[in-house]
Amino acid sequence: MAVAVLGAAGRMGQAVIAALAQQSTVSLSAAVVREGDSRIGEAVVQMPNQQYCAATAVDWQATDAIIDFSSVAAVSDHLALASRHRCPIVLCTTGLSESQQRLIDTTANNVAVLPARNTSVGIALLEKLTELATATLPDIDIEIAETHHKHKKDAPSGTAIALAEAASRGAGLAFNRHQATPRGEGEREAGSIGFAVTRAADIVGEHSVLLARLGERMILEHRVSDRKIFADGAIKAAQWLAHQTPGRYQMSDVLGLNHALQRLLAE
Amino acid sequence: MAVAVLGAAGRMGQAVIAALAQQSTVSLSAAVVREGDSRIGEAVVQMPNQQYCAATAVDWQATDAIIDFSSVAAVSDHLALASRHRCPIVLCTTGLSESQQRLIDTTANNVAVLPARNTSVGIALLEKLTELATATLPDIDIEIAETHHKHKKDAPSGTAIALAEAASRGAGLAFNRHQATPRGEGEREAGSIGFAVTRAADIVGEHSVLLARLGERMILEHRVSDRKIFADGAIKAAQWLAHQTPGRYQMSDVLGLNHALQRLLAE
Amino acid sequence: MAVAVLGAAGRMGQAVIAALAQQSTVSLSAAVVREGDSRIGEAVVQMPNQQYCAATAVDWQATDAIIDFSSVAAVSDHLALASRHRCPIVLCTTGLSESQQRLIDTTANNVAVLPARNTSVGIALLEKLTELATATLPDIDIEIAETHHKHKKDAPSGTAIALAEAASRGAGLAFNRHQATPRGEGEREAGSIGFAVTRAADIVGEHSVLLARLGERMILEHRVSDRKIFADGAIKAAQWLAHQTPGRYQMSDVLGLNHALQRLLAE
Amino acid sequence: MAVAVLGAAGRMGQAVIAALAQQSTVSLSAAVVREGDSRIGEAVVQMPNQQYCAATAVDWQATDAIIDFSSVAAVSDHLALASRHRCPIVLCTTGLSESQQRLIDTTANNVAVLPARNTSVGIALLEKLTELATATLPDIDIEIAETHHKHKKDAPSGTAIALAEAASRGAGLAFNRHQATPRGEGEREAGSIGFAVTRAADIVGEHSVLLARLGERMILEHRVSDRKIFADGAIKAAQWLAHQTPGRYQMSDVLGLNHALQRLLAE
Repeated sequence: MAVAVLGAAGRMGQAVIAALAQQSTVSLSAAVVREGDSRIGEAVVQMPNQQYCAATAVDWQATDAIIDFSSVAAVSDHLALASRHRCPIVLCTTGLSESQQRLIDTTANNVAVLPARNTSVGIALLEKLTELATATLPDIDIEIAETHHKHKKDAPSGTAIALAEAASRGAGLAFNRHQATPRGEGEREAGSIGFAVTRAADIVGEHSVLLARLGERMILEHRVSDRKIFADGAIKAAQWLAHQTPGRYQMSDVLGLNHALQRLLAE
Repeated sequence: MAVAVLGAAGRMGQAVIAALAQQSTVSLSAAVVREGDSRIGEAVVQMPNQQYCAATAVDWQATDAIIDFSSVAAVSDHLALASRHRCPIVLCTTGLSESQQRLIDTTANNVAVLPARNTSVGIALLEKLTELATATLPDIDIEIAETHHKHKKDAPSGTAIALAEAASRGAGLAFNRHQATPRGEGEREAGSIGFAVTRAADIVGEHSVLLARLGERMILEHRVSDRKIFADGAIKAAQWLAHQTPGRYQMSDVLGLNHALQRLLAE
Repeated sequence: MAVAVLGAAGRMGQAVIAALAQQSTVSLSAAVVREGDSRIGEAVVQMPNQQYCAATAVDWQATDAIIDFSSVAAVSDHLALASRHRCPIVLCTTGLSESQQRLIDTTANNVAVLPARNTSVGIALLEKLTELATATLPDIDIEIAETHHKHKKDAPSGTAIALAEAASRGAGLAFNRHQATPRGEGEREAGSIGFAVTRAADIVGEHSVLLARLGERMILEHRVSDRKIFADGAIKAAQWLAHQTPGRYQMSDVLGLNHALQRLLAE
Repeated sequence: MAVAVLGAAGRMGQAVIAALAQQSTVSLSAAVVREGDSRIGEAVVQMPNQQYCAATAVDWQATDAIIDFSSVAAVSDHLALASRHRCPIVLCTTGLSESQQRLIDTTANNVAVLPARNTSVGIALLEKLTELATATLPDIDIEIAETHHKHKKDAPSGTAIALAEAASRGAGLAFNRHQATPRGEGEREAGSIGFAVTRAADIVGEHSVLLARLGERMILEHRVSDRKIFADGAIKAAQWLAHQTPGRYQMSDVLGLNHALQRLLAE
């Protein structure tokens, strides 16, 4: 099978192409950059037989899925492309607006769409485990810690907030992602979720969920040491999505988490 | 409701009695020590209105469940007691033989029995999370670490081995608990499970499961800082077990882990 | 030798008395509570042969050192007591004002004074190690994490701030303790020190110092699992202080950290 | 200044050349491979203006220091080279025999020699901190944990053993590196040092030293996320060594650890 990579000249686009070059199951059908980009026609370094092209030049017959690591500004255009060509799309841009979220829902009537804030397989699982743990452990205090490189601007990270949402669902807490702030002064309010943020050097990304009760605690942690796993996760998602009927999916579907849960229940 | 504590003079028996003294939902119907023990008739320190007694002196009418922290040598007798008096039993002795395991199955035809190596609510959950994670994450290396106080004699801990069993079930690995040894020299064999053992000072008990893939890892960890939680867990188990029909149960049933899984699936 | 405990009815005063009751080297010369306290004359539970008394009733001839866990309001009175009776004092109250700090200096002309924010032996060492590490490692980003129980009101903890001060001294950074706040949004400023704060359940106190460079990091961590160590540290400090000439001392002196450094240098 | 890299075609030799290519302070005077190697005369990929050569072809006038990442079999020859050309040498081969250790001492009469098992700056510091901590903390149990990738064959790692040696020096314990084995069954012997070994995936190298007392513990930890730091450390050592008089040095000298200690003492 073959994928078209949108945002091919960006940091993550390049990482996906490098990851494709290292395996033989999925090939690159097109390395797409912005219309008018000066690189159009240039060979892709890791795959010299491929040239950068604009979206208009993609061979859609030869494309089984799209991996989109371009910018949020292009989301509407790229969803339209996916819909028109009935080509499943893994959408890895973050910071989507409410109206873009609705557009995803509409597009998903025609074609398989998988929006993913974080394409590591581990994080999708960590969210599920967090929800399961908070749904089960009585009387817990929930705190989230995250550590990233010194250039990261937002805090807490989107993934930390997603973990807090998963924890809230499990525990039946009201949690407002717009009020997520680092824990500071003052006695802990029951039912609150605190965030501990660390920024240093070139640390790729680490998240941990603390579930503490009197006398015991559980810590669910995920660490990334190589950005490449995000590229690998996107490719894995594209491979899976290429065989799905229209609909809106998430990383946990790629991992078959629900299937695994059912298998555990049946035993 | 009321529980009889077997092995009442031991370290964990005393901890259960102390925990009972601190709450008002469950009372102590009998503090049972070995036939012929010199303490019989003495007042129980934390509950001066109670006296130590032999099993023959228990008022079974006033007893809703048994918590057994006595020794493995008494298991057969205590299962017979539970069966005869139709009194549910939480069996916290460890190191049960194959024939004692079968006796539990037989007894469970008459009365609810819950054998538990570790009565913390966290460990039961950690086992489930481990199984779910290893059933889902592709290409992982599984390693278990455990840290306990300097007086612990066995290694790896029984709980570490139970975690390795849960991980093996999830990952579909063959794992033989009788071959569980600390990881040492030699290149790692694919599919093996390594154990890292630490013994120091008065550390109560800490377990962690490492699931590592190229470029990312997940760590599921549990730490106990106060032995009291084992007593609390046993009482919680007894409260729950008192309302069950005959059968063999485990700590995950007390926590309603399967119910929580079903709820997650239904969403 | 014998110590007088000021603030004897408080949580930490009680912990010191309990620790004294468990050993035989240091005895309790007086359990001092506030003038007019209704407990005066009552027996001390862990040492029934002792009664609570006011400061006026202390037998100073029989007292080799004072351990003061009373409140910051009593600091001036207690320093005056120590000075008048030439009795060395371990001062464990926190939140001292600038003028109280100066009073300590004056008092230290007459008698040995040891003000200590944290009497664990580990934290004194952690401060020294942090200073040594930041003085040595090139190009590091410094971040401090701390975790405490849910009732703690201030954040970051005083010990976290002391660690940041030690790190700043070593690294030659300007650091203003009055601007210490949890790390939040925005790209990391070079030379800044971030704090990650966690509050949950009954966690006694955990601190860690992260020193991260590109590709490597060092983490210096300290965890307390039992409050008793603060009492033990205060007693150890009192034992040591009883033999010192007038002067102002700190916990690192009790540990002989400078001596240990000199020994290492001489090798 | 310029360095000759011995063992230039190996994994670490290549890493050193790649690191040299990324900076402009130190240049590569020669990329040395074994006499008769078929690559002799080929351009070095990261530095196309350089060709692989044999040791006989090195321009020693243009070489300020040697970085040796070749094999232990070549140690004697390479020490002789360094001695003959009065060229300081950073010797990064491991597993040196007793007689090779003595040869280093002899060579150090003529030229500066720095043997280094681990060239990360962090590990040299960790050893010093460990020695200082164990020299200071009373009543501690010492345990070492290390985690490496799945292909590592020896266990515990050489660095873990070096940390145990540093801890033993500090604590005044007898420790025999030839008896270092992973901790297993049996109550902890006082004064013993345990090792906890983990092997998984592509983890570069992580070491931690646990110093535990009743109720408190200190953990000194070091994690490498990028092998490049070993190359950087070797280059840093070579830069420093080029200006030293004959003698035997170690990584802690490069870091100026003793100077930093003296500075701390003087304050």
